[in-house]
Amino acid sequence: MLDDAIREFLAARRGEHLARLKEFIRFPSVSAQSDHQGDCLACARWLAERLGGAGLTAEVDESPGRPVVLAAGEQRPDRPTLLVYGHYDVQPPDPLELWDSPPFEPTERDGDLVGRGASDDKGPLLTWLAAAEAYHNVAGEAPVNLKVLVEGEEELGSPTLAAFIQSNAERLRCHHAAISDTAFHADGVPSITYGLRGLMYVEVTLAGPGRDLHSGLYGGVAVNPISALATLLGGLHDENGRVTIPGFYDAVEPITPSEHVAFERLAFDEDALKADLGTDALAGEKRYTPLERLWARPALDVNGIWGGYAGEGPKTVIPAIAGAKLSARLVCSQSSDAVIAGLREYLQAHRPPGTRVDMKVLSAEEPWLVHPGSPALVAARAAMAEAFEADCALIRCGASVPVTSQLQAHLGVDALMMGYGLPDDRVHSPNEKFRIEHLYRGALASASLMARLAEL
Amino acid sequence: MLDDAIREFLAARRGEHLARLKEFIRFPSVSAQSDHQGDCLACARWLAERLGGAGLTAEVDESPGRPVVLAAGEQRPDRPTLLVYGHYDVQPPDPLELWDSPPFEPTERDGDLVGRGASDDKGPLLTWLAAAEAYHNVAGEAPVNLKVLVEGEEELGSPTLAAFIQSNAERLRCHHAAISDTAFHADGVPSITYGLRGLMYVEVTLAGPGRDLHSGLYGGVAVNPISALATLLGGLHDENGRVTIPGFYDAVEPITPSEHVAFERLAFDEDALKADLGTDALAGEKRYTPLERLWARPALDVNGIWGGYAGEGPKTVIPAIAGAKLSARLVCSQSSDAVIAGLREYLQAHRPPGTRVDMKVLSAEEPWLVHPGSPALVAARAAMAEAFEADCALIRCGASVPVTSQLQAHLGVDALMMGYGLPDDRVHSPNEKFRIEHLYRGALASASLMARLAEL
Repeated sequence: MLDDAIREFLAARRGEHLARLKEFIRFPSVSAQSDHQGDCLACARWLAERLGGAGLTAEVDESPGRPVVLAAGEQRPDRPTLLVYGHYDVQPPDPLELWDSPPFEPTERDGDLVGRGASDDKGPLLTWLAAAEAYHNVAGEAPVNLKVLVEGEEELGSPTLAAFIQSNAERLRCHHAAISDTAFHADGVPSITYGLRGLMYVEVTLAGPGRDLHSGLYGGVAVNPISALATLLGGLHDENGRVTIPGFYDAVEPITPSEHVAFERLAFDEDALKADLGTDALAGEKRYTPLERLWARPALDVNGIWGGYAGEGPKTVIPAIAGAKLSARLVCSQSSDAVIAGLREYLQAHRPPGTRVDMKVLSAEEPWLVHPGSPALVAARAAMAEAFEADCALIRCGASVPVTSQLQAHLGVDALMMGYGLPDDRVHSPNEKFRIEHLYRGALASASLMARLAEL
Repeated sequence: MLDDAIREFLAARRGEHLARLKEFIRFPSVSAQSDHQGDCLACARWLAERLGGAGLTAEVDESPGRPVVLAAGEQRPDRPTLLVYGHYDVQPPDPLELWDSPPFEPTERDGDLVGRGASDDKGPLLTWLAAAEAYHNVAGEAPVNLKVLVEGEEELGSPTLAAFIQSNAERLRCHHAAISDTAFHADGVPSITYGLRGLMYVEVTLAGPGRDLHSGLYGGVAVNPISALATLLGGLHDENGRVTIPGFYDAVEPITPSEHVAFERLAFDEDALKADLGTDALAGEKRYTPLERLWARPALDVNGIWGGYAGEGPKTVIPAIAGAKLSARLVCSQSSDAVIAGLREYLQAHRPPGTRVDMKVLSAEEPWLVHPGSPALVAARAAMAEAFEADCALIRCGASVPVTSQLQAHLGVDALMMGYGLPDDRVHSPNEKFRIEHLYRGALASASLMARLAEL
């Protein structure tokens, strides 16, 4: 479905696009570190200027935490509107000593471009700029109404994005949204992510005696908060790896037979996973395959625990209090509120006499799942297949990408997650890289999607 | 059995003895703080000089960690030898702001002398000096062969004492040993402690994945070391409060019917204990009374736990490792080695697949129990009753006093634990105090014991 002229334009500009990505990577736009605040603003402005060069009207909104880049082409009522989301901020590059070349000096190596942000998310984001620019130059404008939203706080968990989308809902209104911030299932397997898990994250404290006690003088009569907390946490899974929170699985949508088959067909090497984890056994629900457990089943994890004495040597104390952080990864149609209520009920029902339990919610994100057979997603798959010359897989992911459910909640739109990265791109790690070929093919896919959406 | 002349001598010297205790307390002999090393040595020397004044040959041995004071009177083969043990070191006085008077400026208040070390152990220790001095002045010498061992590291857990006793076994050889480092069961109830619990203290680490993992990307397949550790720790007690370590209770000597009755007769207010602990429920083995659980039953406590993220806010991590400190209070005839082996077996048997458990022993002390009907103990009870003019109770204590089992192991002698403190002496806390009357009556009891042992 790609116009030959667009294809030729993009093919002819490969060198320029690589040079532009290098320029983009040179901004150390680290959102977590306040001394890079100026770099973030400079990076946002640079990006807005490039979007302007592609025929879009672009601006930098400095009102949220880190500047947001907003851009839009001409909006015509007779064609669909596509919102492209991306982020220009990057993870801190630490530990620096593990990089083979400086993180903000992009370096070509074996067909890859190495640098912080190359794959997450600067390379993939620039494919959309390249596609828009190609249409602008070849045809005067893109076949869809284009809108672009690029945030600078994704690596912080997008703390202000939901509010921004809500208060700019009219400006961002669209029929489709595209996000390139995920990866292929495997090298040679272009993939679209159609489901993400949600998250509920809480902090639990369990208080026992009114003060720290001498374990010799009180051991055998005083309630021990660490033991009590351990019993509660240990009881959160049964012997089959299932979570015991009341009602936890009630709203979980079953894996359909066709999805089961689709998962089975995807290359997945359990032994390689074990080797990667340095373990000889996996955990989780016994009834499901590892991929099903990761993608389509909820999971509960304790993320931190503390209480009593953790210093050197012995201290014979029964502490007054112990605490833990725990989180659940949720799948549709679980709601974080219902799971939090169930956990609260479990803790109150099972806490031993003489203890008080307190729970604080630290984070809540809803699971996200879209229909893999929707016309837009079918179009996106076809665009990926056309550009990368391989069948496009449908995959899910166990993590959360908050923007997806925010777009669903506030704009009513299901994102198309067209991942141009590779699983070994070392995202968030030293020597992050992006395959240079994917910059070109990603631009082809992005351009193809625009053409295909216009035809729906 | 107290000679009138001894009684009169001690009664006449009450003011001097109080002044001497004040002098003793003024030494900030804090063993835990190295800047008080000089104070410890000065204190030891001062004490040796006072022992010399009571007709004993005294010396300060500076070879162990903190100086040890050794003293002995004339040793005659035709009478029994009594070794008196005490310690001149004290706990740090912190938090200083909670003291109503400076900790090392002894202050009289409502019949008490307030100051760090007043009750633990300087006041009680001086009663033995007063008794020896009385005999020296009134009769030329005590009715028994006296030996004195005063250490300066008790508040550190007596780390070098066992080795010192072993290498000085001949010099310390004795028929009886007396220790005044415990308290009355209640005000008005002079008490002898005839049993102490032992201790085994270990650190357990549980390793899962080879590195910290993202809980979104791996939750549901990766073994979680915190959950695994929590399950292991939670499983260490059953629903009746019993410890599940294999063989844990095998060597526990049952509470005899007569001991059960004796415990029942002692004043013990369960509601007061709950109020003191700020709790509405006690823990422990349901089949036993609180006092039995504290004194005559073993107990297991988790003293510390750590793993994953304990900072502010959420972090979605599955950590590579988690750890805990745990300890068991042991009663006769449990051995710390057997319990440690049982715990190791339990952890290995119950650790989930994909985890590795490591255990490090940090401390091991054997339980101590002597026959409450032995002639020496009957004599000690009579001495206490005579001096304090009240029946002397037989009690046990849930904590450990390492020297007791060390004297048993290396000198083959059962200590007589004649406690002159009171339960509310605020030992180890701000405003520690010792009842001034107990300085006098303690000296009477100490002198009476010497006379009674000579008659056995």
